[in-house]
Amino acid sequence: MIQNAIKKVASLLIAVTTMGNLMAQELKMPTLDDLLPGGETYRYAENIYGLQWWGDVLVKPDIDRIVSVDLKNGKETEMLTLEQVSAMLSKNGINVNLPSLQSVKMLWPGKTQMLIPTRTGYYVLDWKSQTLVAKQEMPRGAANADFNSESGNLAYTIKNNLFVNGKQLTDEPNGIVVGQSVHRNEFGISKGIFWSPQGNLLAFYRMDESMVTEYPLVDIDARVGELTPVRYPMAGMTSHKVTVGVYNVKAGTTVFLDAGDPTDRYFTNITWSPDEKSIWLIELNRDQNHAKLCQYNAENGKLIGVFYEEQHPKYVEPQQPIQFLPWDDTKFIYQSQRSGYNHLYLMDTQTKVYPEKHTSDGGGQYIESLQTKQLTNGNWLVQDILGFNTAKKEIIYASTEISPLQTNLYKVNVKTGAKTAINTEEGMHRAQLSASGTHLIDIYATPTEARKIDVYDTTGKGLAKAIHLLTAEDPLKGFILPQIETGTIKAADGKTDLYYRICKPADFDPNKKYPAIVYVYGGPHAQMIHNGLRYDARGWDLYMANKGYIMFTLDNRGSDNRGFEFESATFRHLGVEESKDQVKGVEFLKSLPYIDANRIGVHGWSFGGHMTTSLMLRYPALYKVGVAGGPVIDWSFYEVMYGERYMDTPQSNPEGYKETNLRNLAGNLKGHLLMIHDYQDDTCVPQHTLSFIKACVDARTYPDLFIYPGHPHNVSGRDRIHLHEKITRYFEDNL
Amino acid sequence: MIQNAIKKVASLLIAVTTMGNLMAQELKMPTLDDLLPGGETYRYAENIYGLQWWGDVLVKPDIDRIVSVDLKNGKETEMLTLEQVSAMLSKNGINVNLPSLQSVKMLWPGKTQMLIPTRTGYYVLDWKSQTLVAKQEMPRGAANADFNSESGNLAYTIKNNLFVNGKQLTDEPNGIVVGQSVHRNEFGISKGIFWSPQGNLLAFYRMDESMVTEYPLVDIDARVGELTPVRYPMAGMTSHKVTVGVYNVKAGTTVFLDAGDPTDRYFTNITWSPDEKSIWLIELNRDQNHAKLCQYNAENGKLIGVFYEEQHPKYVEPQQPIQFLPWDDTKFIYQSQRSGYNHLYLMDTQTKVYPEKHTSDGGGQYIESLQTKQLTNGNWLVQDILGFNTAKKEIIYASTEISPLQTNLYKVNVKTGAKTAINTEEGMHRAQLSASGTHLIDIYATPTEARKIDVYDTTGKGLAKAIHLLTAEDPLKGFILPQIETGTIKAADGKTDLYYRICKPADFDPNKKYPAIVYVYGGPHAQMIHNGLRYDARGWDLYMANKGYIMFTLDNRGSDNRGFEFESATFRHLGVEESKDQVKGVEFLKSLPYIDANRIGVHGWSFGGHMTTSLMLRYPALYKVGVAGGPVIDWSFYEVMYGERYMDTPQSNPEGYKETNLRNLAGNLKGHLLMIHDYQDDTCVPQHTLSFIKACVDARTYPDLFIYPGHPHNVSGRDRIHLHEKITRYFEDNL
Repeated sequence: MIQNAIKKVASLLIAVTTMGNLMAQELKMPTLDDLLPGGETYRYAENIYGLQWWGDVLVKPDIDRIVSVDLKNGKETEMLTLEQVSAMLSKNGINVNLPSLQSVKMLWPGKTQMLIPTRTGYYVLDWKSQTLVAKQEMPRGAANADFNSESGNLAYTIKNNLFVNGKQLTDEPNGIVVGQSVHRNEFGISKGIFWSPQGNLLAFYRMDESMVTEYPLVDIDARVGELTPVRYPMAGMTSHKVTVGVYNVKAGTTVFLDAGDPTDRYFTNITWSPDEKSIWLIELNRDQNHAKLCQYNAENGKLIGVFYEEQHPKYVEPQQPIQFLPWDDTKFIYQSQRSGYNHLYLMDTQTKVYPEKHTSDGGGQYIESLQTKQLTNGNWLVQDILGFNTAKKEIIYASTEISPLQTNLYKVNVKTGAKTAINTEEGMHRAQLSASGTHLIDIYATPTEARKIDVYDTTGKGLAKAIHLLTAEDPLKGFILPQIETGTIKAADGKTDLYYRICKPADFDPNKKYPAIVYVYGGPHAQMIHNGLRYDARGWDLYMANKGYIMFTLDNRGSDNRGFEFESATFRHLGVEESKDQVKGVEFLKSLPYIDANRIGVHGWSFGGHMTTSLMLRYPALYKVGVAGGPVIDWSFYEVMYGERYMDTPQSNPEGYKETNLRNLAGNLKGHLLMIHDYQDDTCVPQHTLSFIKACVDARTYPDLFIYPGHPHNVSGRDRIHLHEKITRYFEDNL
Repeated sequence: MIQNAIKKVASLLIAVTTMGNLMAQELKMPTLDDLLPGGETYRYAENIYGLQWWGDVLVKPDIDRIVSVDLKNGKETEMLTLEQVSAMLSKNGINVNLPSLQSVKMLWPGKTQMLIPTRTGYYVLDWKSQTLVAKQEMPRGAANADFNSESGNLAYTIKNNLFVNGKQLTDEPNGIVVGQSVHRNEFGISKGIFWSPQGNLLAFYRMDESMVTEYPLVDIDARVGELTPVRYPMAGMTSHKVTVGVYNVKAGTTVFLDAGDPTDRYFTNITWSPDEKSIWLIELNRDQNHAKLCQYNAENGKLIGVFYEEQHPKYVEPQQPIQFLPWDDTKFIYQSQRSGYNHLYLMDTQTKVYPEKHTSDGGGQYIESLQTKQLTNGNWLVQDILGFNTAKKEIIYASTEISPLQTNLYKVNVKTGAKTAINTEEGMHRAQLSASGTHLIDIYATPTEARKIDVYDTTGKGLAKAIHLLTAEDPLKGFILPQIETGTIKAADGKTDLYYRICKPADFDPNKKYPAIVYVYGGPHAQMIHNGLRYDARGWDLYMANKGYIMFTLDNRGSDNRGFEFESATFRHLGVEESKDQVKGVEFLKSLPYIDANRIGVHGWSFGGHMTTSLMLRYPALYKVGVAGGPVIDWSFYEVMYGERYMDTPQSNPEGYKETNLRNLAGNLKGHLLMIHDYQDDTCVPQHTLSFIKACVDARTYPDLFIYPGHPHNVSGRDRIHLHEKITRYFEDNL
């Protein structure tokens, strides 16, 4: 019945479109396989893989050829073919089967050289002389490879040890990890190898986690269930110890930064000074309320000085390494949300401040030992520094200045402070800058456009779009899709605007009553609604809306891109304020005439799994059905870095841990709650869900349970379809 | 509606009963708490705890006094009070708080001595002289204590080591277990300590399981999920090695039986010769198709001889130690199912047979080195030797001679072979013999009687009931209960009779259509239907019948008490023939006019969980809903001793393991199947269910899952109510 109705409406929609080629064919109902990554018929939006700058020359590799693109008229000129490159490799004795040129990197402006990274090695070819400039081979099992384009040095890890140019640098036992990301990827850390600018020195992380309790994950796919433990430091417990080493390639020696006892300290955001003589990093105490910008001598490891400090009674969270100005080695950009929003601060290493300048601001304490100038300002935040225009002394960056749902591109002049928008159009823009910063590739999506790629001239007054490279077709073209809208409601504090997204069936009838499902995440560093394609509505949202559910999502306080106060409203009792905001969302839903107030469900994963469980237990009258995936149940089972930032420790915040421990609310369960956990979940360990199940058994309440063996945190790949079919059936059976 | 109807019928039932005291009150609907062990209101049938023989004197301890009972008229004479015993203990310097006399043992006929076992020690008091005859104290953590009443010696274990009279005999590392049951309690083994008749020597098991793969069970109740591994030898894999030690208490020395390399050998049914000079045991090869009765010299450990051998192409399964005749140390009873049914064989150590006598029978090969005489015979089986009447040279035993659903008591004269029934009445009888065997306590239940206790005179011709001690009230008196019937149908082989039990709602209306649920076990060594109270219908059967379900159970081929052919019909493909028989049961159900053929469910645990899953997958059209608890999914994940007996090894029977691996049938799932597993299940490890879930995800089928953390195999105690509420809801929601 619904199917027929949708077909009817779909025909109407077609009738009013101008897409003539669609007129003849009927819209299809998409399946989960069409809608979800991992599905057999899922398609990603078209893209130009490998698009890059060779200095200021725009280079577009394809599978079988590389062309340069004229920035004035978009005309393409062939530079090389796959056949030619393969022949050059072969001629130089390199026996690799190169399937495509899309992975080739033109790293050397002005030089006719290209880097060819493969699984077994890195090769630098000069395509003019057809010679092999450099070659670095890697054994099987190598990971985290980092090739330095200046020196040609290659660093990588095998298991828990570090190698450079084929030489093993460390021989650490199990429990000590070298050259990999540390501190569980918090504080903006994503890697453990840091080449100096000229590639003569290699800074690297060494993490001793031998003192960290192992969580016993089990692989049931082995002949006999096999232990695959993870070192998992839980809130309030003994954590790992991180140190930073510096390896001198020529000398073959290693020096460790002389930072003292590393217990309960975080070393983040490692940056080399342009002259390679020192390393800058931001140190944070375990309580995460005191950050220090430190400079260390790279040769002897000694601390040169602490040049900036931030303290805040809640927390400080440095996430970006400092960036030196390309035209002035004595100045760098520090990113801080001391104003309440992340902004750019220019610091000058040559004008030291004696005595240090102490400031109080927004509850925080700041100590400046270098002359500091705020470059951007406002109730919006800088999301990323994209690069520099050296000639004009400009920083190009991305920000939310237009709207928290937007990412647009801007430039700010370091000397004058003048700020100019590069684009202001709706959408989510990210960019790749050319070497001199005169041009950028703008890759963006809008609510109605899957992907577009334009090249801008950043130098002119008009910030002209130079050429247009791609308009990707909607990968769901030809399918029946719901109507999607966004809007704002007030948070539970009565004043803050919160953004929501609502998806209605294609054949929406305002006179009918619909069941509604809230999809929730709700945690820090994530935002579910942007002005990207379909306002970021997920494939499953579309699927369920097509089935006749109103799909609703609200970015509550605590979520991303709204500044520190908004995020930290949840401090020391994660999930409580967030849940109150989500209740406002349900109240809004219930105010809509077409919502069946007795049929409201909720689903989320990870923090969203916590939220789902929290909402089902704190507001049992509001939600009939919930599906919680990979939830946090008890923050004392979560890891130290993320958990203690927001919750402090169980020892110092017992009441907060008690209030947010959902086991204590297990007896409140009234509706249907399906708990899903991955058996290899090393982010939210299975103990969360299993201990909750035990609490419900103790309290004689009746949640349902499902486990996905073989998957870590969340279910990806082919099994993602099974997961969503499972979730769908649960709502269909119970809502 | 059903409630009202039941009340109406209940009133009718009351009207026709003669229980006047019930007339006034209405029958109540029992809850799960009323019906299941672990429930808050569950009651066991009344019993006489501690009832025992002091020689031929019947002694009845109670909480606060011990009486002797006159066997002629039942008159009770007070022997001792709790106050007196406590005073005697205190007077002798023993400071234990004795809460009851029910644990007291009168072990010494003719002597006025009693054993008082407590958690911290064993005390022997002479109540005439009021003196302490013996004292053996135990430290905390002591387990498996065994007090020898002849010598006063006490053996016990602490963790994995053995102690005698407070002295530590062994100091083995983790992975070696001494003094405890071995071979996973198969082959009738239930303990690891064996005192010689006079208590001068102690035989004990030593099991080296350090070479056995550990299965990683996880305790999620710890601060951080904690590994609690079990050594679990899986089918076809490396198994543990068992040896037998003999400790001489006076000499303080230990000798091990010189049995050679213990790899892949089972040493079972240890018995002492009456003169303490030798140890008899039955040795079995890993393939379990060759048993040898061996005698070892207890002083030097040397093998004296192999006196009897059984071989069978399927398996042989010795489950009972030999028993020497009390009146003749040269003869013993061997129990064997070589005739197809377990029977008693008299063997004479003095009349050795040269050369040994070789016999073939029922597919088996037998070698007798001692003169052997079969004492019982027939298509029924001896279940237990209860004792002897030395004066009359009689063996008293329990058998199924009257019916496979019955246990009755018999005696056979060893000299004449004359067999006499002690009782033939309906019911399940078990007995305690007096020292001379002239009297026995018969404790029994019948389909309508919860427990009765009578004392018989076994000597008279009429086998007179001497006195009647107890008629326990039905613990479910006053509750609405279903109608329960038994009957037989033919097995899938077309010839074998199978017993079934059917429970119908109290207000059963033959003109209505009822959904039906099959409760199944189906595995060896278990029988779900006996002539015990309500034909063994379980509390949950009663509960569901009260809710309007027809509850059905069928003991298929492979189950207990029907002889070797019946049991071994399943050899090398467990679950397949059993499932065919269960289908016959469903066909029978569907032939009943009042069964709704489209609403048939199935539930079982352990082997019954395997059966449930097997039936849901092999016959998806027959069963709409299944709940499988703690199932075996793949016999290669099950342990060596039980598994290889019926399945051989995965190496030698790959096709059988493939056929019975339910993962291979995961794609067949059509109905609703809830899989339940205990997270601490060390019998069927969680890998069974979790690997099945993975197979279903791979096959895109949709079972449901629940896990009980903190429970081993099956859910007992308070949580058993939760389990059955969970199961009930699943059938109510889906059937």
